[in-house]
Amino acid sequence: MSKPNIQLDSNGRLRHFLTTEGLSRQHLTEILDVAESFATVGGKSVKKVPLLRGKTIVNLFFETSTRTRTTFELAATRLSADVQSINIATSATSKGESLLDMLHNLEAMHCDMFVVRHADSGAAHFIAQHVAPHVSVINAGDGRHAHPTQGMLDMFTIRRHKGDFANIKVAIVGDVLHSRVARSEIHALNTLGVGELRIIGPKTLIPPSVNQFGAQVFHDMERGLDGVDVVIMLRLQKERMKGALLPSESEYFTRYGLTEEKLAVAKPDAIVMHPGPINRGVEIASSVADGPQSVILEQVSNGLAVRMAVMSMVLGRQGEKSNGKEG
Amino acid sequence: MSKPNIQLDSNGRLRHFLTTEGLSRQHLTEILDVAESFATVGGKSVKKVPLLRGKTIVNLFFETSTRTRTTFELAATRLSADVQSINIATSATSKGESLLDMLHNLEAMHCDMFVVRHADSGAAHFIAQHVAPHVSVINAGDGRHAHPTQGMLDMFTIRRHKGDFANIKVAIVGDVLHSRVARSEIHALNTLGVGELRIIGPKTLIPPSVNQFGAQVFHDMERGLDGVDVVIMLRLQKERMKGALLPSESEYFTRYGLTEEKLAVAKPDAIVMHPGPINRGVEIASSVADGPQSVILEQVSNGLAVRMAVMSMVLGRQGEKSNGKEG
Amino acid sequence: MSKPNIQLDSNGRLRHFLTTEGLSRQHLTEILDVAESFATVGGKSVKKVPLLRGKTIVNLFFETSTRTRTTFELAATRLSADVQSINIATSATSKGESLLDMLHNLEAMHCDMFVVRHADSGAAHFIAQHVAPHVSVINAGDGRHAHPTQGMLDMFTIRRHKGDFANIKVAIVGDVLHSRVARSEIHALNTLGVGELRIIGPKTLIPPSVNQFGAQVFHDMERGLDGVDVVIMLRLQKERMKGALLPSESEYFTRYGLTEEKLAVAKPDAIVMHPGPINRGVEIASSVADGPQSVILEQVSNGLAVRMAVMSMVLGRQGEKSNGKEG
Repeated sequence: MSKPNIQLDSNGRLRHFLTTEGLSRQHLTEILDVAESFATVGGKSVKKVPLLRGKTIVNLFFETSTRTRTTFELAATRLSADVQSINIATSATSKGESLLDMLHNLEAMHCDMFVVRHADSGAAHFIAQHVAPHVSVINAGDGRHAHPTQGMLDMFTIRRHKGDFANIKVAIVGDVLHSRVARSEIHALNTLGVGELRIIGPKTLIPPSVNQFGAQVFHDMERGLDGVDVVIMLRLQKERMKGALLPSESEYFTRYGLTEEKLAVAKPDAIVMHPGPINRGVEIASSVADGPQSVILEQVSNGLAVRMAVMSMVLGRQGEKSNGKEG
Repeated sequence: MSKPNIQLDSNGRLRHFLTTEGLSRQHLTEILDVAESFATVGGKSVKKVPLLRGKTIVNLFFETSTRTRTTFELAATRLSADVQSINIATSATSKGESLLDMLHNLEAMHCDMFVVRHADSGAAHFIAQHVAPHVSVINAGDGRHAHPTQGMLDMFTIRRHKGDFANIKVAIVGDVLHSRVARSEIHALNTLGVGELRIIGPKTLIPPSVNQFGAQVFHDMERGLDGVDVVIMLRLQKERMKGALLPSESEYFTRYGLTEEKLAVAKPDAIVMHPGPINRGVEIASSVADGPQSVILEQVSNGLAVRMAVMSMVLGRQGEKSNGKEG
Repeated sequence: MSKPNIQLDSNGRLRHFLTTEGLSRQHLTEILDVAESFATVGGKSVKKVPLLRGKTIVNLFFETSTRTRTTFELAATRLSADVQSINIATSATSKGESLLDMLHNLEAMHCDMFVVRHADSGAAHFIAQHVAPHVSVINAGDGRHAHPTQGMLDMFTIRRHKGDFANIKVAIVGDVLHSRVARSEIHALNTLGVGELRIIGPKTLIPPSVNQFGAQVFHDMERGLDGVDVVIMLRLQKERMKGALLPSESEYFTRYGLTEEKLAVAKPDAIVMHPGPINRGVEIASSVADGPQSVILEQVSNGLAVRMAVMSMVLGRQGEKSNGKEG
């Protein structure tokens, strides 16, 4: 690569985690391996490890998401870090302070990591480009662009159930066009060498770019699910209904909602995934969401392990650290 | 009992704390005894004990109460637990996620306890019926139904001042009809074998059900307070004034507000209690609230000890724990 | 002094920190010396010291300030204290509870310190007058009156760069009339024996009282900055523009905005300070705020050290502590 990858430090180790795009199979596999070591922490009686004791992690949520903020806070707390969550709407940026001034102030307070959620695609990259050398940035979802920890917790869940990616068929179903989760999954599955990737959804919700990943596109769900090992359902943003992109909820459910009948064409041991929160009866039937093939709650548990892994990796690097201009 | 008590585990130990109703005198006494051991922690220079280190406690407050949330957070923190407080109004339930889906997600994140405050009677029971085997629920106030930690901190305060319940006369004064605090107190006093229980208030605010506890009902306050050892004043919800249930604030104060004159008919060493926040000049005169017989601030201190006791009891059980489906 | 100083305990040690006014040079110097010992903590890999473990600190912010609240929370956390931040707008005071009742309740929960921010001058003093003997109060900004930790972090920054105060000339520029920061700085500089103090600003924004400190007043900025060692720019509250006190933003910037040209008349090694958040292009040019003479971000780092110092000093006193009425 001619241009250095902003996500890596000069030793090629993960410094920021902004997107699954552009990271090597080795990097993604390392995240999964480290997450494996944390997957048992949650089940223990004492759920804390002292890896990030004395580190300060700041949640900068420009877009509200209690669920995502909670998992990042829990992950940080179980690594023994101190966490500050800043509600941007009421912060000094509303007094006319610029975003960069706020960031530099937090850096001057010796914060070590920003977990950023933003409605604009590219916001986490922008912040990563401007932070001090000792600070790491984790993207907790930016616009339609990426949600890399969600993408990796899905990879972790698939690997735990299916082992090697090379031998499996994965179908992603729904509103791929607007989904940062889908984008992060597609890049990760491609890099990890998935056997076959299928994209299922109405024409209006499939971006043309999916072809570059060798994904097969299906508009008929039962054909698309035929023989797959993994079904990843996407959340349907109900706001889409208001525009011309989608018919009614019930018509959407008839065509693309995951029911027991439709799931029957997948492999008998196929797993069903969903990033949550689920819209029961819109993109997935309750009998499937709560059924034996659903691993939706496992995904939530795995999300903690993956976030602990990423946080400990970016802050645990040796030899690269410096306090920059703040001394 | 034919039906198992949802509050107890299979070994008969306290697993949830939803109501003082249906618990034995032994259970209630154990709470008071354990609280006694925590009552000195608050006064120490280092106020923490490591009993719940690594446990995750989630405050689910569907109804705002800074005071109650603060005491539960402080109790959890002093037991060294990690605490997450979730503002339900802004959480994913507003994205259409069901309450049960949210609970199961939090369980999948390995949370150990939900502290629930809800405007609907029965909400904490509903949640307790649906949580995973490793999770405990504490009711921090549900509708008009129960507020059991408030009830028990009042029992703790009475026992510290008066010793044995069998020898004392207790009067509860005010809006018993709408008071979850009163309901929890009446059940606890009855189970603990109080010598005499009196209910004082206007006819419109006394529910007929109090008779089943052998309580004597008084509509004249001075007759009701005659010779009592303990006076428990209830908070008057000012909203009640708007309906037809009550006359004006000043008329209410004249008849049922606790003044030094009215208190004079109680025993000379009678204690005055109030769950707070107090409405000075509505249900209680400032001279009484701040006077020598008032133990209102002691109640607050005792609330911490009782909450620490309940939290440590439900999470400290041995042999019953399992990680359920989350592994 | 005939009247005892409310900020000191009976042994003459700092118990509350409400204002820089009325404290001796010895007290202010002790704050700076203790802060020096904390100034290196932020840069360490593990940023925590166990000095206030088991102490409970409550942020009572009646006026929103994410930045100030964050620095106090980080300072408390790095001293290993437990922190509760209470949003007054949604607390029980809105249920009609009085401020003093809320304070006494928090004291009964064994809280050790209140960090108070309030829009009214004198609020922190009022609270300090009414707290229990074991509780300390820190003023985090009250109306136009004082912001003493900001004042002391500025003294700390000056001392680190310039050494002895006796040999330097300091200019404070801008809206002194409405600035609690300026008031705290002026008292501190006077007590610490600054060589020369200059106040620069339009006539409408300079209070007559500055004369009592022997400050020289300048309405022409370039004359005022001539030969100074330290330039302290004040934040311009844009609301002032609406009244008759100030001309337009651009006219203000032309006369009192700090530009490279105006700064050129100060000493070549003069430092430029600002309490933040800065209004770029209103009171200071970006080229100066981000330029080599700016120590604005150092001030932020130093703010943590000074707040850790003050918190540890007021809670670390020996022999004076009592649990008051709460036992």
